[in-house]
Amino acid sequence: MYRTHTCGELRISNAGETVTLAGWVQRARKLGGMTFIDLRDRYGVTQLVVEADADPVLVETASSLGREFVLQVTGTVVERESKNAKMPTGDVEIRLEQIVVLNKSVTPPFTIEENSDGGEDIRAKYRYLDLRRPPLQRALALRHRLAQEVRTYLDSQGFMEIETPYLIKSTPEGARDFVVPSRMNPGQFYALPQSPQTFKQLLMVAGYDRYFQIVRCFRDEDLRADRQPEFTQIDCEMSFVEQEDVLNMFEGMMRQMFKNAVGVDIPNPLPRMSWYDAMDYYGSDKPDIRFGMKIHEITSLAQGHGFGVFDSVPYVGAICADGLGSYTRKQVDELTEWVKRPQVGAKGLVYIRVNEDGSLKSSVDKFFSPEDLAAIAGALEAKKGDLILVLCGEKRKTQTQLGVLRIELGNRLGYRDPKVFAPLWIVDFPLLEWSEEDGRFYAMHHPFTAPKPEHEAWFYSDKKEDLERVCANAYDFVLNGTELGGGSIRIHNADMQARMFEVLGIGKEEAEYKFGFIINAFKFGAPPHGGLAFGFDRVCALFGGQETIRDYIAFPKNNQGRDVMIDSPSLIDEAQMQELCIVSTVPAET
Amino acid sequence: MYRTHTCGELRISNAGETVTLAGWVQRARKLGGMTFIDLRDRYGVTQLVVEADADPVLVETASSLGREFVLQVTGTVVERESKNAKMPTGDVEIRLEQIVVLNKSVTPPFTIEENSDGGEDIRAKYRYLDLRRPPLQRALALRHRLAQEVRTYLDSQGFMEIETPYLIKSTPEGARDFVVPSRMNPGQFYALPQSPQTFKQLLMVAGYDRYFQIVRCFRDEDLRADRQPEFTQIDCEMSFVEQEDVLNMFEGMMRQMFKNAVGVDIPNPLPRMSWYDAMDYYGSDKPDIRFGMKIHEITSLAQGHGFGVFDSVPYVGAICADGLGSYTRKQVDELTEWVKRPQVGAKGLVYIRVNEDGSLKSSVDKFFSPEDLAAIAGALEAKKGDLILVLCGEKRKTQTQLGVLRIELGNRLGYRDPKVFAPLWIVDFPLLEWSEEDGRFYAMHHPFTAPKPEHEAWFYSDKKEDLERVCANAYDFVLNGTELGGGSIRIHNADMQARMFEVLGIGKEEAEYKFGFIINAFKFGAPPHGGLAFGFDRVCALFGGQETIRDYIAFPKNNQGRDVMIDSPSLIDEAQMQELCIVSTVPAET
Repeated sequence: MYRTHTCGELRISNAGETVTLAGWVQRARKLGGMTFIDLRDRYGVTQLVVEADADPVLVETASSLGREFVLQVTGTVVERESKNAKMPTGDVEIRLEQIVVLNKSVTPPFTIEENSDGGEDIRAKYRYLDLRRPPLQRALALRHRLAQEVRTYLDSQGFMEIETPYLIKSTPEGARDFVVPSRMNPGQFYALPQSPQTFKQLLMVAGYDRYFQIVRCFRDEDLRADRQPEFTQIDCEMSFVEQEDVLNMFEGMMRQMFKNAVGVDIPNPLPRMSWYDAMDYYGSDKPDIRFGMKIHEITSLAQGHGFGVFDSVPYVGAICADGLGSYTRKQVDELTEWVKRPQVGAKGLVYIRVNEDGSLKSSVDKFFSPEDLAAIAGALEAKKGDLILVLCGEKRKTQTQLGVLRIELGNRLGYRDPKVFAPLWIVDFPLLEWSEEDGRFYAMHHPFTAPKPEHEAWFYSDKKEDLERVCANAYDFVLNGTELGGGSIRIHNADMQARMFEVLGIGKEEAEYKFGFIINAFKFGAPPHGGLAFGFDRVCALFGGQETIRDYIAFPKNNQGRDVMIDSPSLIDEAQMQELCIVSTVPAET
Repeated sequence: MYRTHTCGELRISNAGETVTLAGWVQRARKLGGMTFIDLRDRYGVTQLVVEADADPVLVETASSLGREFVLQVTGTVVERESKNAKMPTGDVEIRLEQIVVLNKSVTPPFTIEENSDGGEDIRAKYRYLDLRRPPLQRALALRHRLAQEVRTYLDSQGFMEIETPYLIKSTPEGARDFVVPSRMNPGQFYALPQSPQTFKQLLMVAGYDRYFQIVRCFRDEDLRADRQPEFTQIDCEMSFVEQEDVLNMFEGMMRQMFKNAVGVDIPNPLPRMSWYDAMDYYGSDKPDIRFGMKIHEITSLAQGHGFGVFDSVPYVGAICADGLGSYTRKQVDELTEWVKRPQVGAKGLVYIRVNEDGSLKSSVDKFFSPEDLAAIAGALEAKKGDLILVLCGEKRKTQTQLGVLRIELGNRLGYRDPKVFAPLWIVDFPLLEWSEEDGRFYAMHHPFTAPKPEHEAWFYSDKKEDLERVCANAYDFVLNGTELGGGSIRIHNADMQARMFEVLGIGKEEAEYKFGFIINAFKFGAPPHGGLAFGFDRVCALFGGQETIRDYIAFPKNNQGRDVMIDSPSLIDEAQMQELCIVSTVPAET
């Protein structure tokens, strides 16, 4: 071992000890005749000092050090004259007797500190240097801690981690697969899994009862911001359970993760909200409940006053932003432009301001009497100084627009503190979605999701309105406006599965072609089962109080799916392609 | 929850309780008017009984059950009249009050019991049914336990599990890569990692200090028996360590795994053997030390007696098989044929039998006096009733042949009990191997492995014989004749790396082309570091007392790299290939 202690370990109680440390030179500076060196490793930073009257060779070596040199140093722990309360090691420094330069470093292309001066591109190229920075070290340490907590909890609950294959089969459904040509089976391809869904259901058929895996998944999608072609899931499945069992089990897991990894107590039990309520009151199936500002339907109050815009639509909804009554006309106009952008898609915005004197001012004063406006303000429980914002149109679409506006205002009002955690379950999703365009139902989750037992009569009904109100035994775990995971109780009964295909208009042949393998496996005694999966990259980022996942992945890819550090993907040899029986259609020059 | 207890849980102390179980029908049989049902889940088997005078509907349902039906049953725990001491639940049975058939099963194609009547192919096709069998359930449970032990131990030692990417870059060196065409970067390919070697060394450069990962690796090799195209490694790396630190850390890990997963205490410290001793005494760099029967060099005793075969070779070696003096002439002839097979490659076999009366009989009596033979027998410490077997030729080749013969005799003599565990470290590997054919040195491990510090002078010498005796800071973990893992201390110093390339005859340009990326990263302050990797599939199999890894992988591939259960690899759509800018050169018919 090159060291007796780490750079984060020494305290005043170690004073007088002779110690050996190893690490990187954060910085070295001369002060009078003395040299001060900050030595850094994963565990912290310790100040080293070479006295002016020290051995000349030592002084000489200390003077020659550059940033990021790797040192092994030996010296005596002494109490500092000017202590640094910000550092755990800030009470002491090491008076050096020896410096061994284990390795030199060329000058790094950016500063390796809490905040770097390097741009995103250069830091991506030298990721191994960016990874030395404390925020990234904390991010990966948190990720490790969370993975350990997941495993410890699930192990204690009788779950087995079972590895499923990465070289599997391409499926005609869903997102695009990454494929892998097989040399031993010319002309044929493996696919990389988008999720281990089929395998985990097979493990339930195989009797494994409680399965989990922290597993890489792959999707060849055009990358939106903060999507990665490879990502990690906490994938879980249980047998002989109902929805209630799954929710209890996994909120227990989350509770332990919050407690042990970030020291936060989350409510017990967690709040649950139906999908319908989430849409009606938050305009989103992943509501951020760190703040109120709920959506109110005011259709009946808004209609019948001669304002054609309200009178001609099925739905009028509003939110009340506290304190924004101070917004100027210009600011309200800016907000109106904001909701009219294609990303939101509203036609316009009506406001009602509650003045400090209690009077009301709105953009539709022409149509609404002060009493009419007061009725609306009353419905929203608006106070003096608040600003009511109204949108209208088709119900769900308008709610969604109000939901987006709500989040924007939450940001502006500072209601979205990333260190505050407000998790909840969304339950009672509709099982089916009617497509006007195609004149048929689609499965909202997937075609193996079971209807709620109490809705089975509707599920077997021929009436569209009955089928529309069937809820699924499906659930999402939502944190601070982000869906972290979700799952469902699966159909395990052949008759119910056949009915599902019938409802979805999937014929026997098509079902056989698309799902034949799993349907066949289910004939051999499939148990009732259900499960869920969490997006682990996103879990880590949110627990760390960040919105982007990139810092929580050691070696991420950019938006073009490239690893710019290793410069991948890349061309391969012609001979390699020949062995794989493939030819590239891209001319060699490109 | 569909159950109050598992099928492995109930004991005599539960007698009188009303319980609900869920599981699969192992078998159902009528005895008099009663029906006995064995209900199975992952946790065990419980006997259910339906009395002749029970509710007729219940009796009727009990009569209709087939193998592998999925049941939920409720009843009272009663003490059995005839107890079954072989089952943990064998003292009780459940007198049923209700049976709910959760799912039926078609008749499975083989019996789902400790030993199945199904052949390998049919069991592979219905892997999800084979996985219901207790030996496979035990295998995967052991695998889970071992993975947990690895993680708990390494976490307690300050290691961080850090996930490295699966979509990386194809490298011109080493085994064949699996490649993945990139749609977003037409004409370019990712490769699947053969190991995370580069990334773990970068993590050391990045200051992560103690890294591990249980990670899938991929090699597109022609599959020998018991090789899989995807396999799992326990991959580890540490900074600021010497070889001694690595060995201590990971034998600690193995000690905890043995103790906690299989209840075995292994020696502390573990034996260590130099590569030279392993070759000289066991004819193998992965010696099975569960038994002796060491190889003895008897060149000086064997030569000079006029036996040309011995006199014309550089090396004569022998092993002494205790008790095999009773082998008949025919048996010895058979052994001679066995060593002459191409898999062993010996030219012939000389024997010396120590008769029960102490006299000696050999196949070379013509050349050797009784005193000559007695000298050899004495050197081997042969006892009455032993059989000495002698091979000769080039030294290492002959030792290897003796090593193979030793293992065969160990098997015949029952010395290789899979429940006995004899782990050890092999150390002091030669750094370099001279190729007569190419007239140059090759790295025995890989070109980043460091020479032992005490051999550095030889490493910088120009003499071939100096270079040949340089030992590496490399080590293998060997268990019962199988290498379970290995690694090395890496070169972190640019000058030493340059010298290594010089010794290997790799020019600057070639080094830059092949290893440029990692060499460049090392310029920014690489710490001294080293690590190792264990083959996790093999670890699981050996801990489980098996030689083959297939039962320790949930969904393995066959020797053609196929998953016969999901029928993969398979053809993919033309449109999919077009998107990926590749064309298959295999005609569509095949």
